Amino acid sequence: MRRILLKVAYDGTAFHGWAFQEGVRTVCGTLLEGIEDLTGERVELEGASRTDAGVHALMNIAVFDTGSTIPPDKFYAALNTRLPEDVRITGSQEVEGDFSIRKAGTEKTYCYTILNSEHEDPTRRLYSYYVNHKLDESLMSEASKCLVGKHDFRSFCSVHTQALTTVREITGISVKRAGDVITVTVSGMGFLYNMVRIIAGTLIEVGKGRFSPDDVSVMLNACDRLSAGPTAPPQGLCLMEIRLMD
Amino acid sequence: MRRILLKVAYDGTAFHGWAFQEGVRTVCGTLLEGIEDLTGERVELEGASRTDAGVHALMNIAVFDTGSTIPPDKFYAALNTRLPEDVRITGSQEVEGDFSIRKAGTEKTYCYTILNSEHEDPTRRLYSYYVNHKLDESLMSEASKCLVGKHDFRSFCSVHTQALTTVREITGISVKRAGDVITVTVSGMGFLYNMVRIIAGTLIEVGKGRFSPDDVSVMLNACDRLSAGPTAPPQGLCLMEIRLMD
Repeated sequence: MRRILLKVAYDGTAFHGWAFQEGVRTVCGTLLEGIEDLTGERVELEGASRTDAGVHALMNIAVFDTGSTIPPDKFYAALNTRLPEDVRITGSQEVEGDFSIRKAGTEKTYCYTILNSEHEDPTRRLYSYYVNHKLDESLMSEASKCLVGKHDFRSFCSVHTQALTTVREITGISVKRAGDVITVTVSGMGFLYNMVRIIAGTLIEVGKGRFSPDDVSVMLNACDRLSAGPTAPPQGLCLMEIRLMD
Repeated sequence: MRRILLKVAYDGTAFHGWAFQEGVRTVCGTLLEGIEDLTGERVELEGASRTDAGVHALMNIAVFDTGSTIPPDKFYAALNTRLPEDVRITGSQEVEGDFSIRKAGTEKTYCYTILNSEHEDPTRRLYSYYVNHKLDESLMSEASKCLVGKHDFRSFCSVHTQALTTVREITGISVKRAGDVITVTVSGMGFLYNMVRIIAGTLIEVGKGRFSPDDVSVMLNACDRLSAGPTAPPQGLCLMEIRLMD
């Protein structure tokens, strides 16, 4: 048996998220079917990020064990022939037999894309959140600064979390405008449920002038989900990169 | 009765093109249903560009007559409430009662998007053509130059054309790379069937080194569809803008 690590990109539009659910189209379930089709094995898959329905990824990571003799670095190309167009494997490699994503630890980068234009663009609706109200990206950027570092992010976490602790570390945030597109890029050592979408939703309210940058610092310290802004919709979110710490 | 001009943006993915066909989901048919839903009238629609299945538009133009009392500049917002998400009206205005797009004459700008990266990107597959082979965009740009001006574009026209003449005028072409995305932007006074897609398909072959820039000039002079390159697939094409000449 060998342990294989896959880098996985997907369009989240037609998936009910990453996590396996019987009878529902999920990224994990689709990968399991593709691997079974290729190797004849029904494997178990460890994923690095259980993205929600509608959330995209340019790089998620999955790990599984296989008895297949396909060379590890050729696995990705072989598996792509057994997968639908909206999920693509962009790399594969063998890892140690006791490797675990959870044990290794990861730094992840997410990007939240806002289309801030006068009119909606149907060709971008599945990969951005449309905001008609002109946003002030410099206020959004200023407001984001207080989130960097190790904090209790309870205010920026869904009340449906099952996390034992809501302390997390954000290693960097940037807010950038390019024409009518604003991107909020957040890197960190693990994220809480809906954390990036609540950060994006809160910064959008700052951009509209409904909260001041100082208000965000107060929200963070309140440790209360009701104090922060709304959860921005899933289609604006994309998991860009995962770096293994180990 | 008033004559209304609409600016229309759409994601072509789920449409069988612009042109009305009974029993098939088309942009024109969807607009007719939306207008009937809003005004109670079954109108006739003149479109500026009959885009193919899978081709997108940020700005196509449609003209129709209505007895509705909705102010012309409010028509677009009212109509958007009756249309599906993949088609959006971005503007509306009243025009003269004898206005016709055909008579007015138009300059159109199309953009063809090529994703030229090591790996496919599922989140861009519906809005670009993926080419794995590294393309030389400077050769593509050089090759495109000979197409500018008034020429017989028979070599760059589908054999299924019904056009009386294959002479057209291209007012500008540019080939630009931004990271792993190459865009071929073509402006002209009217286009033949599949013309931009054949130009894109031919320039891609130049970018691969299979044709030289000089070959494209020979192809143009041959006036024979078989001499030029393949028709690039529809999802990379987007109608960007239409300028009325009148």
